[in-house]
Order: sequence, then structure tokens, then C-alpha cells
Amino acid sequence: MEKIITITRQYGSGGREIGRKLAEAYGIPFYDNEIISRAAKESGFAEAAFQNVEDKATNSLLYSIAMGMNVFSNQEMGFTGLSLDDRVFLAQSNVIRKVAEEGPCVIVGKCADYILKDRDDIINLFISASVDFRIKRSIQIDSLPTKKAAEIVLKKDKSRANYYKYHSGERWDNILNYDMALRSDLGGIDATVACIKMYLDNL
Amino acid sequence: MEKIITITRQYGSGGREIGRKLAEAYGIPFYDNEIISRAAKESGFAEAAFQNVEDKATNSLLYSIAMGMNVFSNQEMGFTGLSLDDRVFLAQSNVIRKVAEEGPCVIVGKCADYILKDRDDIINLFISASVDFRIKRSIQIDSLPTKKAAEIVLKKDKSRANYYKYHSGERWDNILNYDMALRSDLGGIDATVACIKMYLDNL
Repeated sequence: MEKIITITRQYGSGGREIGRKLAEAYGIPFYDNEIISRAAKESGFAEAAFQNVEDKATNSLLYSIAMGMNVFSNQEMGFTGLSLDDRVFLAQSNVIRKVAEEGPCVIVGKCADYILKDRDDIINLFISASVDFRIKRSIQIDSLPTKKAAEIVLKKDKSRANYYKYHSGERWDNILNYDMALRSDLGGIDATVACIKMYLDNL
Repeated sequence: MEKIITITRQYGSGGREIGRKLAEAYGIPFYDNEIISRAAKESGFAEAAFQNVEDKATNSLLYSIAMGMNVFSNQEMGFTGLSLDDRVFLAQSNVIRKVAEEGPCVIVGKCADYILKDRDDIINLFISASVDFRIKRSIQIDSLPTKKAAEIVLKKDKSRANYYKYHSGERWDNILNYDMALRSDLGGIDATVACIKMYLDNL
């Protein structure tokens, strides 16, 4: 399995855990928040500016604050005339391209499938699950407040779709963009990993 | 595996063969043109009117001819005021609902996922493949003329998407509509069947 695996996922679907387990199974690097840290470090951005940028895309207040931040000048960053959002995206894209060049790995979220679309060694996965499953999981794993969990889960879906659309110009939910898509709630996380692995082992 | 499996597929992706092999593996009925024949027989429609109705959706000349056919009256069919196209769809839908009630089976195409969406024992699969794979397969399996194969394959994709949109109001390529989606060309037809079977066996 000499592929770079990108994972796009609905919030609460367990896509990140699936990615981590796949990376473990193949003994290859796993990039999620690690990308963020690396991008932050290499580009000199404050790490805080990168945190969860993907999940902020519909939170207009937070987003406005982030966009209005003048922590560093455009010139300083080398991205003249771009918004903070675009500069963060560009810095992340550079990191994603760099880690992909280092060899097989798993990259979760952050439009990695779009950023790497010109490579021929990419496998794009999409992980979804029922709303109920995702709400329960978000309460358990991410400690979302029970009362607001449903609202947050739906909002996060929307923001991921918007983030993807904004940066790639494409629909996040276009099935033709992916090599494999699976609902993780039907068989559970481990069965989903096993199934993906069987698929990848045949490549 | 006590499920009703619906398969939506790109033309030339091998979705029908995959469906047939899954049905064989589980020893359950397989419905494709068989549905057409059964619908034709039960509703009294001329079988010819049902043939490949799904693939005609962008062929405007043929479609117009079909829509203008007055082979039988609306009253006679019990579908007052509907076009031939809609009457064919309704008759097919009735058959799909009927075979689904009979128990686990595999149904290929014909918006079966949409028609059966209110059941809770449905697994919706989507099979895609690269354009190159589908062109080659169409020439080999469906004996498409080599020179026109590319054009026909792309036209058939479009007509399937249009057919789905017309009858369901939904996008055919919406990933969230499916429980599992796979590209059949990466591992081949048999590996794809094995992978789907592993997934279904976990349900």
C-alpha cells in the first residue's frame, strides 16, 4: 500500500479515529492537528490562528474576528493582499504537499484531496454516519454538551461543507470525488477500518 | 445479511455485475431488467416501452417520441393525466416496492434507493470507475463502437443523473445518500464484491 490516503468526514463520524487506525495498520504517518502545528511552525503563524479553522467557517462572529486580526502583516508573511483565512489555507496547503512528497501517509480534512488532486498516488475516502450516531459520539468523545450536541453537529457539517466549497470551488458531498465512501455507524469503527484496509490491500 | 441492497452506478462501472455477484453470494434475488419485464407484465405496458428508459433521459428525440406515444390511454392504465414516462416510473416503483416486501434482494438502478427510502432495511451502494475503465468495459461487454464509446459513456452518465433528478428531485451524486460507495476499477470487480460483502457481513 504505497498510497497517500486523504479522509474527508462528517463531524462525529469517527473519520479521524479511522484515519489514525489505518495509519497504525500500515505504519505510515498520520496528519491531522499535526499538520496544523507543522504549518504554524514553518510559516511562523501563531499556532492559535490555525486551530480548528475548518470548523469556524460558518461561525461568522469568530470568523470576522479572525479575519480582522492584524497579528502579522501580509508583507511579512509573503502572501500580499490575501485574507488571514486564505493565508492560513495556503500555508496548510504547502505543508500538505510537503508531507505527501515524503511518502505514504494519512491526512484528515483540510481539503487535502483537493490540494493533492494532481498526484496519481492519492486515495480519497469519505466517512459519514447517521446524525444520531454522530451526536452520541460527539457527546462521548468530544464532550459536547448534551443539550446542544445536535445543533453543534449539524453546524459543523455545514461549516465543513462551506470550508471545502470556499477553498476548492467544489461540492464536499460529490460522490465522484472519492474512491471509497463508507458509513461508519453500520458496522462500527473497527469493521470500517478493516473494510477500508481490505480495499486498500487490493490496490 | 437481511438487507435490500440497491445499486446506483456509473455506466460501464460494472455495477450490474457486482450486484449480480452479491445476489449470488447471498442466494437472494437479483433485479435489473427482470424488474422491467415484471413491471411490463403486471401493468400491461408493452415491454418495449420500459426497455432502457433510464438511459433515454437525455436523448431528447427518442424521449419526445416515447412521451408522444399513444399506445394506450391514461384511463386504461389508471394513471390519469400522467406522461408515459411518469406512468412507466410509477409502474416500476410499484414492482420495486413489491419485490422489496418479498425479502432481501439486490436491485440495480431505477431510483430504487429513492423509491424504498422509507424502509429501514435498505443498504444503498454507489459504484463508480474511471472514464477510461468504463470506456474499455463498454466496448468489451456492451459491444459499444470503439470510436463512439467515449461519447456514449459520458452521455449515459448524464442521462442517469437526469433521470434520477427528474424522478427523485435529488442529486444522483450526493454522497450522503449512500451507505457505501466504491470505485470498481482500482481493485477490479471481484475485489470490489469481496469488499462490499465484508462490509455487509458486519451489519
